[in-house]
Amino acid sequence: MEKQASDLFKEFKELTPSEFFRKNRQMLGFSGKIRSLTMVFHELITNSLDAAEEAGILPNIEIELERIDKDYYVLRHQDNGPGIPEDYVPKVFCKMFAGSKFRNIQSRGQQGLGCSGCVLFSQMTTGKPVRVISKYKEDGEIKGVEMLLQLDEKKNEGVILEKNEVDPDGTGVFVELHLKDVTYSRSEQGAFEYIRRTMIGNPHAQITFKDPRGKIYKFKRASTKIPPLPKEIPPHPKGITADDLLYMAKHSNRRKIKTFLMASLSRMSQNKIKELEKLVNVDLDKRPKDLKWDEAEEIVNAFKKMDFMSPPTSGLIPIGESQIEKSMKKMLNPEFVASTTRKPATYKGGIPFITEAAIAYGGNAGRKVGDQRKSEIIRFANRVPLTFDQGSCAITEAVKSIDWKRYGVRDFENSPISVFVNIVSTNVPYLSTGKQSIAPEPEILHEVRQAVMDVARKLRRYLRSKAIAREELQKYRLFKKYIPIIIKEAAKLAETSTPNYNNFLKKIVEKRNIPGEINEK
Amino acid sequence: MEKQASDLFKEFKELTPSEFFRKNRQMLGFSGKIRSLTMVFHELITNSLDAAEEAGILPNIEIELERIDKDYYVLRHQDNGPGIPEDYVPKVFCKMFAGSKFRNIQSRGQQGLGCSGCVLFSQMTTGKPVRVISKYKEDGEIKGVEMLLQLDEKKNEGVILEKNEVDPDGTGVFVELHLKDVTYSRSEQGAFEYIRRTMIGNPHAQITFKDPRGKIYKFKRASTKIPPLPKEIPPHPKGITADDLLYMAKHSNRRKIKTFLMASLSRMSQNKIKELEKLVNVDLDKRPKDLKWDEAEEIVNAFKKMDFMSPPTSGLIPIGESQIEKSMKKMLNPEFVASTTRKPATYKGGIPFITEAAIAYGGNAGRKVGDQRKSEIIRFANRVPLTFDQGSCAITEAVKSIDWKRYGVRDFENSPISVFVNIVSTNVPYLSTGKQSIAPEPEILHEVRQAVMDVARKLRRYLRSKAIAREELQKYRLFKKYIPIIIKEAAKLAETSTPNYNNFLKKIVEKRNIPGEINEK
Repeated sequence: MEKQASDLFKEFKELTPSEFFRKNRQMLGFSGKIRSLTMVFHELITNSLDAAEEAGILPNIEIELERIDKDYYVLRHQDNGPGIPEDYVPKVFCKMFAGSKFRNIQSRGQQGLGCSGCVLFSQMTTGKPVRVISKYKEDGEIKGVEMLLQLDEKKNEGVILEKNEVDPDGTGVFVELHLKDVTYSRSEQGAFEYIRRTMIGNPHAQITFKDPRGKIYKFKRASTKIPPLPKEIPPHPKGITADDLLYMAKHSNRRKIKTFLMASLSRMSQNKIKELEKLVNVDLDKRPKDLKWDEAEEIVNAFKKMDFMSPPTSGLIPIGESQIEKSMKKMLNPEFVASTTRKPATYKGGIPFITEAAIAYGGNAGRKVGDQRKSEIIRFANRVPLTFDQGSCAITEAVKSIDWKRYGVRDFENSPISVFVNIVSTNVPYLSTGKQSIAPEPEILHEVRQAVMDVARKLRRYLRSKAIAREELQKYRLFKKYIPIIIKEAAKLAETSTPNYNNFLKKIVEKRNIPGEINEK
Repeated sequence: MEKQASDLFKEFKELTPSEFFRKNRQMLGFSGKIRSLTMVFHELITNSLDAAEEAGILPNIEIELERIDKDYYVLRHQDNGPGIPEDYVPKVFCKMFAGSKFRNIQSRGQQGLGCSGCVLFSQMTTGKPVRVISKYKEDGEIKGVEMLLQLDEKKNEGVILEKNEVDPDGTGVFVELHLKDVTYSRSEQGAFEYIRRTMIGNPHAQITFKDPRGKIYKFKRASTKIPPLPKEIPPHPKGITADDLLYMAKHSNRRKIKTFLMASLSRMSQNKIKELEKLVNVDLDKRPKDLKWDEAEEIVNAFKKMDFMSPPTSGLIPIGESQIEKSMKKMLNPEFVASTTRKPATYKGGIPFITEAAIAYGGNAGRKVGDQRKSEIIRFANRVPLTFDQGSCAITEAVKSIDWKRYGVRDFENSPISVFVNIVSTNVPYLSTGKQSIAPEPEILHEVRQAVMDVARKLRRYLRSKAIAREELQKYRLFKKYIPIIIKEAAKLAETSTPNYNNFLKKIVEKRNIPGEINEK
């Protein structure tokens, strides 16, 4: 009955990342027909926006979704970004864990799973290859290539089935994907709403979308300003672990630990090196490659005792208060809206992030459930909407932990409120490969709470003034009704004729606010 | 200002799975000091239980957690399983996406990320190698080996730093891991509670735990019956996709598609092949390797039109009602407990699963929050407790969607209720690589709802009888107080002496239930 190890291990297998995610597609967000399609839109759009932003181009995206059959669509996605050099095309679309964004830079994607995940999903559901046209500049010259690619799961590699030169009229990438087991929906979690929300965080983008019925929607850019280029921010000494330091040292080509530290970490000046030298028993003149674990740990522990300026945050690009308010007004037509952008903070000691929050109240704010409106939380990370896995997200946790009664909201769940939060960082700590929820790092929870409470205080002021105005209106109605009667009765008692009370009444009216006239403050 | 593609792509990198998860350790569940330690316990314990179960051994696990410094611990974990053959030791502990559980079999682990994830985390936080002793049987002979291993992230491979032969006194695996950035806690999400909950699903296991203070806890087995061996269940024709079929065909060594189908799918008889032949325009006598996508799709579409018996479920091993109730009573000492095991169902057409549910009410059921008790949901998958990411889990969604008022629970949130759910499957659709929440497949949501409502009906009966009993008690108290008075007064009126009414009163008492005497039903 008892089995021995040598038999049990005959089943031992080694998978490539592609094979692993083929078996676990839900981990890339591909579960459910509506969600799967939204994920494809999400991956392609974020890639296009990142590429345009990095190249300094105002993004123009054209998407066409053609319905072939029930649950069977063809997606055509075209951008005007910098394009992808020929050699990299198979890698971008057919190799998992490969990409150009594994840096300390704010970008929408950061995992090297986006495009290749979409191709894997397309291939799994239709068996069809992906068609890509890339037009790009190389050493000043424009080139164009068209490829038909298959993802070889066993090798985690792209296989080129067909390749043609293409006449390049400008740079950009075109992708054509066949997709089954998906549904187009205009619901809250559907692809259309995804585009709409993308515009909140990316007012400089222009997206044209042809839906399966052939109707064309043009989401026009609200701003022609290219957002500032996000800059790579070297890790901060306080946020680095011994393991990070060792890893970086191993891959550094500097000659001395000293110069390696100054080149690789932010806020490391000559003076800081001198300070460090006094605290550690490590020869900082030796080669970085010879750094040992214990020494790296000693250096990191010394960093904890030293004072450093906060990490630079010039590379972090928030959406900005006025833009958020503009978008919320356009989208929700609320009676009140307010927003805030917090000062940069750090988590895990030195990873910089900025939190933005806004609250919209009344109008179309909140979710419509039956004929009631309930509260909703609109989550963004690096200016990209997060649509799924709300329950496990740090943003949700932080917003729900607020004592809303203190801000004049008696029943948060059942109020017409939209709470918007955007977290911007060089490294958003996503909880899963599907990138839909943020890990509850204590500093992130704290900042989200503070940001939302900041705007909640403004909401409280508004709700109070609204309550006062309501009382005033009641008083005013009383006055309006009874003043004439009192005046008439008084005149009767005084045995005089009733005086003209219109002017008197008008003064009272002018002194009082009427709710219909209350504006957003 | 505008950048060209050839410059942008100089930063393109390809990562190994180890490098990827090194950058995203939170995706393996390693975020937060308490949670990180619980994850290590989880991975090592589930591996030991799986190994023992597969080999037909009653599991004995000995764990020692030594505290070296603040947030610095050494974990020593020993089991009596079948051991790991020498060649596989570096792969099990140092290679991600490698394992023996990529099969259609119910096992606690299924991803090939568990042990290697723990080693990666240990190495990232301490720089120390892992020490493993494996004693195993090979062709009837017992062997023993001790290794000191380092995980090479660039290669996703183990490097053997030291290797010694070891005198094998019996089979099993010993692991020693150094861990920093972790905290031992007795809280709900801590390592101790994790062991306690593991015992609910695994009454045949025995776990001895020496905590950082040196106190030894012995969790004794409640049953000496080795659970039946989970069997590999071939995929069901209704649950298979064209992609699956093609993938299996490519790796089959059968000569004909016919025999390949019968060998690889469950419920595929000679008769079903004949039925299939009439429905498809595919030569089923050709080699499986020559199967094309369109043909695979045609076959899968034909399967959808055919009738098949449900997938076999003899390989699915639930915990069982009596065992769940016994564990809940022991753990929570509730005034009421009931459980149910549903019949097998399938999701995605053909992946079999079984749902079990239990409700405990009163006593120590629910979570203690201040001096109140609130409801709690205890989630299990394949007999393993799920501790984190509750918000996004299908079990949570299903339980919260129930209209609890209909079951006599007026305010579910604030009631002393523990709802237990265990989902058992050859393929649990985890939402993330951290394996802490289950994807909301419609059939899983449905089964969890049904299972919980089944037991909720029993709870309603109990709560009603409790309410009736309360009324009865009030009546009884009235009788007890007034009957003597009435009898005395009646006797006075009748001018006789007071009769003995004790017997009379006793009869009334006997006829009525008294709450203190109500038993669990």
